[in-house]
Amino acid sequence: MTITFREQIKDLTPYQPGKPIEDVKREYGLNEVIKLASNENPLGSSPEAKKAINSMLDQLNLYPDGNATDLKEAIAKKFGIKPTQVQPSSGSDEMVDLVAKTFLNEGDEVILTNLTFPRYMTTTKMMGATPVVVPLKNFTYDLEGMKEALSKKTRLVWLCNPNNPTGTMFTEADLLDFLDTVPKHVIVVYDEAYNEYVTREDYPHNSLKLLEKYPNLIIMRTFSKIYGLAALRVGYTIASEDILMNIDKVRGPFNVNTLAQVAAIAALNDEDFLQKSFEVNKEGKEYLYKVFGEMGLWYAPSETNHIFFDTGKDCGEVFLELQKRGIIIRPMYNTYVRVSIGTMEENKKFIANLKEILS
Amino acid sequence: MTITFREQIKDLTPYQPGKPIEDVKREYGLNEVIKLASNENPLGSSPEAKKAINSMLDQLNLYPDGNATDLKEAIAKKFGIKPTQVQPSSGSDEMVDLVAKTFLNEGDEVILTNLTFPRYMTTTKMMGATPVVVPLKNFTYDLEGMKEALSKKTRLVWLCNPNNPTGTMFTEADLLDFLDTVPKHVIVVYDEAYNEYVTREDYPHNSLKLLEKYPNLIIMRTFSKIYGLAALRVGYTIASEDILMNIDKVRGPFNVNTLAQVAAIAALNDEDFLQKSFEVNKEGKEYLYKVFGEMGLWYAPSETNHIFFDTGKDCGEVFLELQKRGIIIRPMYNTYVRVSIGTMEENKKFIANLKEILS
Repeated sequence: MTITFREQIKDLTPYQPGKPIEDVKREYGLNEVIKLASNENPLGSSPEAKKAINSMLDQLNLYPDGNATDLKEAIAKKFGIKPTQVQPSSGSDEMVDLVAKTFLNEGDEVILTNLTFPRYMTTTKMMGATPVVVPLKNFTYDLEGMKEALSKKTRLVWLCNPNNPTGTMFTEADLLDFLDTVPKHVIVVYDEAYNEYVTREDYPHNSLKLLEKYPNLIIMRTFSKIYGLAALRVGYTIASEDILMNIDKVRGPFNVNTLAQVAAIAALNDEDFLQKSFEVNKEGKEYLYKVFGEMGLWYAPSETNHIFFDTGKDCGEVFLELQKRGIIIRPMYNTYVRVSIGTMEENKKFIANLKEILS
Repeated sequence: MTITFREQIKDLTPYQPGKPIEDVKREYGLNEVIKLASNENPLGSSPEAKKAINSMLDQLNLYPDGNATDLKEAIAKKFGIKPTQVQPSSGSDEMVDLVAKTFLNEGDEVILTNLTFPRYMTTTKMMGATPVVVPLKNFTYDLEGMKEALSKKTRLVWLCNPNNPTGTMFTEADLLDFLDTVPKHVIVVYDEAYNEYVTREDYPHNSLKLLEKYPNLIIMRTFSKIYGLAALRVGYTIASEDILMNIDKVRGPFNVNTLAQVAAIAALNDEDFLQKSFEVNKEGKEYLYKVFGEMGLWYAPSETNHIFFDTGKDCGEVFLELQKRGIIIRPMYNTYVRVSIGTMEENKKFIANLKEILS
């Protein structure tokens, strides 16, 4: 008999990350490459985070604080909640996996959409649960469709607001209506990785206050986007103490590395850096909207740091042509691509090259 | 209906990490605290690792290389294997979890021992598999007993050599005999987190060469012990391409942070630091053996950086008395404790206080 693997993971495909900048430089003989492919903060990260890391370099031999006590307290203080309502993780990637391991079993139905953060689907299948896909409608979550998809077997719903990769959002009123419809034993994972970029007023800007009324809610956030710490792998989740105590049973004992913990604390309170990041993104978004309008290109209205738009040409071709010119974006499907909003200089360079390719 | 959790995780208890040094200082009003509780490298870490981290502080906003290309190549080069046989992970903790998710289902039997790395048991139960516990014999793996425990349902065996927390080892001859007995479809996870500290010649010092003959073997190693990088969370696994391709299906896309990747590459080739760490450990072990002998205390012969010994007193009491005096060790059960081998200065301070307590 030969080696076999779990049937449940048979059809899963490993995530294909974007090409690293260095690889593109090498391959095309380029000196400068702009990466607008992974929704990273184009301003880098808070200088306070770097200082915090430097202060810990003599303690690399010691295991991290497995409880992430200081980070939990810093998050709790900033947002006016209790430290016991907070659980840091190694990016949202890890938390999605932990949630799946805490709740999902064979026979459970899990509602999610078709074009969103891919880990929801992977971990759902990994645990043998049945994905019930409610496609986006006008590139936006179809919460009405999701309500109709609820059944006696529904165990969990994955929501991403605003959504990656489309950048679209649903309103606070829509969220409340949805939460009122979902039975209280069904877990609603509400991923707001991009919430700090939202400009619309009807967005649920204070989702944390919903936790009291909806104890089935799990709110996920990250330090990988506006905080600019994607390299370190750190995010945080806010939920009831009961839910977090159970997630703790499957969590690795030292899941968030020491440097990530101290850098996240420093970055959390660098309001200047956050404000500047927000403004550069807003300005870049308005510029790209204007130019896309002039070029006659359709785009989905974005409340994030990226724009999903229609190039009118095969997305793989556009991707390759841009890459040759030193610009990396993310091809999606058909004629659609996703571009991260960069600095104004990067945005302008991207547009100049895009015009060349589409002309 | 209220919120429920998976039945499989009901009895799991979160890992209880040792108290952080800062907490002990605060609690007892101490200026200096020695931690000999987590088998960390008392010399710190390679200066090359710190330099490598410093060189990356301007790229914290960028996601890590999800493929860990350079780290895989560095490991492959050092040990004469192919990069496709290597998979880095966020410590061995993450790899144990990945292996469980790749192989274990309800109904599978999993063989392990009673006193070993606790994640084997947690992840086995998490996936709903049935643990078959073969207790240690004379504080050492009972491979004969494990052979007898093999059944048609056996899916996987967890081995740790040398073992944590007992520090004991089994020989190359015993390992070969075991691998020859285990059916080829049964996965054997062979965790050698402490292999770099082994002094005995009959240890399987070149386990990597076994992979060709035993494609069901998964070898796990870590940068948390002799390499002194526990804070960063990085380990690596060597197995067949077929096994690693399947583990990749459940692996998070960016599982090893950027700073861990560059620090691990730097640490990997700092032979001076490794050699010094080995010698300090050997010297410390011989000193502790000698003093335990003089004190009439039984200890398990160790091939690691820690010693499991019998204090003759309640382990919790000994732990607390030492902690009051600024020394943190790990209480095990009954009268047994585990102490990590420190610098000679730390070892002597530990012994002086232990004598005081036991007299």
